[in-house]
Amino acid sequence: MTLATHPTQTRSTAAAFSGLKCKECGAEYEAKAIHVCELCFGPLEVTYDYAHLSKVVTRQTIEAGPKSIWRYRSFLPVATDNLIDVGTGFTPLLKANRLARRLGIKNLYIKNDAVNMPTLSFKDRVVSVALTRARELGFTTVSCASTGNLANSTAAIAAHAGLDCCVFIPSDLEAGKVLGTLIYGPTVMAVHGNYDQVNRLCSEVANTHGWGFVNINLRPYYSEGSKTLGYEVIEQLGWQLPDHIVAPLASGSLFTKIYKGFQEFTKVGLVEEKAVRFSGAQADGCSPIAQAYREDRDFITPVKPNTIAKSIAIGNPADGVYALDIARKTNGNIESVSDPEVVEGIKLLAETEGIFTETAGGTTIAVLKKLAEAGKINPDETTVAYITGNGLKTQEAVQGYIGEPLTIEPKLESFERALERAQTLGRLEWQQVTV
Amino acid sequence: MTLATHPTQTRSTAAAFSGLKCKECGAEYEAKAIHVCELCFGPLEVTYDYAHLSKVVTRQTIEAGPKSIWRYRSFLPVATDNLIDVGTGFTPLLKANRLARRLGIKNLYIKNDAVNMPTLSFKDRVVSVALTRARELGFTTVSCASTGNLANSTAAIAAHAGLDCCVFIPSDLEAGKVLGTLIYGPTVMAVHGNYDQVNRLCSEVANTHGWGFVNINLRPYYSEGSKTLGYEVIEQLGWQLPDHIVAPLASGSLFTKIYKGFQEFTKVGLVEEKAVRFSGAQADGCSPIAQAYREDRDFITPVKPNTIAKSIAIGNPADGVYALDIARKTNGNIESVSDPEVVEGIKLLAETEGIFTETAGGTTIAVLKKLAEAGKINPDETTVAYITGNGLKTQEAVQGYIGEPLTIEPKLESFERALERAQTLGRLEWQQVTV
Repeated sequence: MTLATHPTQTRSTAAAFSGLKCKECGAEYEAKAIHVCELCFGPLEVTYDYAHLSKVVTRQTIEAGPKSIWRYRSFLPVATDNLIDVGTGFTPLLKANRLARRLGIKNLYIKNDAVNMPTLSFKDRVVSVALTRARELGFTTVSCASTGNLANSTAAIAAHAGLDCCVFIPSDLEAGKVLGTLIYGPTVMAVHGNYDQVNRLCSEVANTHGWGFVNINLRPYYSEGSKTLGYEVIEQLGWQLPDHIVAPLASGSLFTKIYKGFQEFTKVGLVEEKAVRFSGAQADGCSPIAQAYREDRDFITPVKPNTIAKSIAIGNPADGVYALDIARKTNGNIESVSDPEVVEGIKLLAETEGIFTETAGGTTIAVLKKLAEAGKINPDETTVAYITGNGLKTQEAVQGYIGEPLTIEPKLESFERALERAQTLGRLEWQQVTV
Repeated sequence: MTLATHPTQTRSTAAAFSGLKCKECGAEYEAKAIHVCELCFGPLEVTYDYAHLSKVVTRQTIEAGPKSIWRYRSFLPVATDNLIDVGTGFTPLLKANRLARRLGIKNLYIKNDAVNMPTLSFKDRVVSVALTRARELGFTTVSCASTGNLANSTAAIAAHAGLDCCVFIPSDLEAGKVLGTLIYGPTVMAVHGNYDQVNRLCSEVANTHGWGFVNINLRPYYSEGSKTLGYEVIEQLGWQLPDHIVAPLASGSLFTKIYKGFQEFTKVGLVEEKAVRFSGAQADGCSPIAQAYREDRDFITPVKPNTIAKSIAIGNPADGVYALDIARKTNGNIESVSDPEVVEGIKLLAETEGIFTETAGGTTIAVLKKLAEAGKINPDETTVAYITGNGLKTQEAVQGYIGEPLTIEPKLESFERALERAQTLGRLEWQQVTV
């Protein structure tokens, strides 16, 4: 494998989006591989000509598009028709009646990105957008700083697109996430340190090598991919906004982009305006945003992560203050839960709805439960919980908490004895018995 | 958990299908929970009124349906509107240009059920149909004999539907498949024995308990779900048949049902008639159908499985002779590959197309490669390889064959040293070096 350096960056000529703009001072930039304002160091965000979009995009034009994130391509920062489409997006929005009953609420949906394509997390959305844009900008090597899911996704989609790939991960990740990256044949750098240290190292590498880091120098494009999680929910609810959403908070980007997606579809007249409450979920062991929320601060104090919910363990979240602001102004909440509650959340979702999510999803379900029990979810609200990754990647987290099979001989008598035990004992007890 | 026995079996009143028929002697039966002909012990199959279907079903009525297997519900054996729809089916058909180039062919597609919903294998198709039908027939406890994927799927979809569930697996399955079943809270019986022994035990249990075994007493309904893998490919190719398909062979049911799906859509005028070649893939360590093919036999000699491709390790395949017949009459092939070739197949698909499949998929890709190298795939043929399950479930199979990450300190110098090694060494070599 050759790792190319310093690609030619070609300016797109037919961009459907209009450029980049600083979220803080409003300074405008060309749509290049930059992510920080040169004037105030604020983050850059992609801008669009909404007046134009409201004229050319209708529900019908969207519905006629592919069954993937690319049905929303007018709202995504890509300039050419050379899209990387591996079926990403348009995952099920499942009415979760059995889970809702358990939580004492009535109108609950699960947006299930645990089955997103190709690598079973919402990261496939942002990476599909980032690598399409990376190719437009002339990059031949792509990279990322990752807590696992992003590495899986970047490596897989780069392989499909024939791009060289080098990913950076903390060295203590779950086995499934490491193997689920190596299999695609990228260069994998396992860094002795936590995600925030990995991220700092990658910022240096991005400055010295001409690589496209999806979540650093390509971040403005990359993060726009998460808006599709907002668009899809609107479309799947029959072109309506929900009343309340619950989503995990890592860097805070997902949360703010679902918000941006809702705003955009309202702005261009695709959906009727409605107040939507935004609630965020963190694990106690890495909850800088929840702590700021609880203490009524408008700044984030970085923390050192220590939780099984590794995919959302970002101690210094880049978009934390924006997430905080959205939760407050929408009358939502930010809550955190313990690691045992995360495991219980994973099991609860699996047993009631047949969805096996990773620790981030367990965090979201545990927070949903906590909010429901505290009366912070109106039982009649249309509530959407975002499940962002698959449980097969974090098997360590539940191993030891789900019992064992009943071991039997291939004989009817052996089965009958086992069944008798099963019917007289509780599941977890008898599953540890060998008959 | 309570395990109900002897459910009331209610006859469906508004069935879109017409009943069951013996595949051997043609005897007809009502659409109950039976699978073997009382007269000749042949397998029973669902029948439909195709004259009626050709009048009422069009490409447009199908395209207007849900984005799941249920868009084809007129061709599925369900009688009510009470469908279990968890988003199963309509998985991507990916144009695999990079893999095609490696194999020296030109027109290759991957049908990617590694991302099927909810449990990442084609089994979600058959289980969605079987459990919908089980509920119609009044069953409250569902069950299966499984090599892993079926257990995952039955447990998950039963959880979503609120059905009690008891699954039977061989006791030596991969960790991901066991955990990926237990998480949903079913009763799991791990049988000391191979799949064929598990299956025999389950036949006895099906006779003595009133449970709905998806692949035993519900088998005629269950197996129909695989036809959707045929329908979808036709629709996704723009309402055309491919020239050649390559699919794994376990019991042989999937293979015969893709064939039935193609035949049905031709019969009712949804697609133009065309000869399609059917090629089947087995692992050397369990290749009773490939052996019969090679030796020009029209009967199957059962074998004792010994392969890492556990999900297709059925030594006494129920539909083996039918699969054999189809491969022969369509001018296809049946080929087998060694376990190392299976691992290479998994890696090849991941590195070229960004799809991580389990051992069954590795078997299919390795056979595809073998056939291409032997000139048994015409380079210009539109060829579809069916990938039936996800690699995260069989991590053991590739562990040790994909290298390790490069371990570095969170410092630029450490990264640069690692990169230098990476660029001067081959990937597998340097990935085992700690810098």
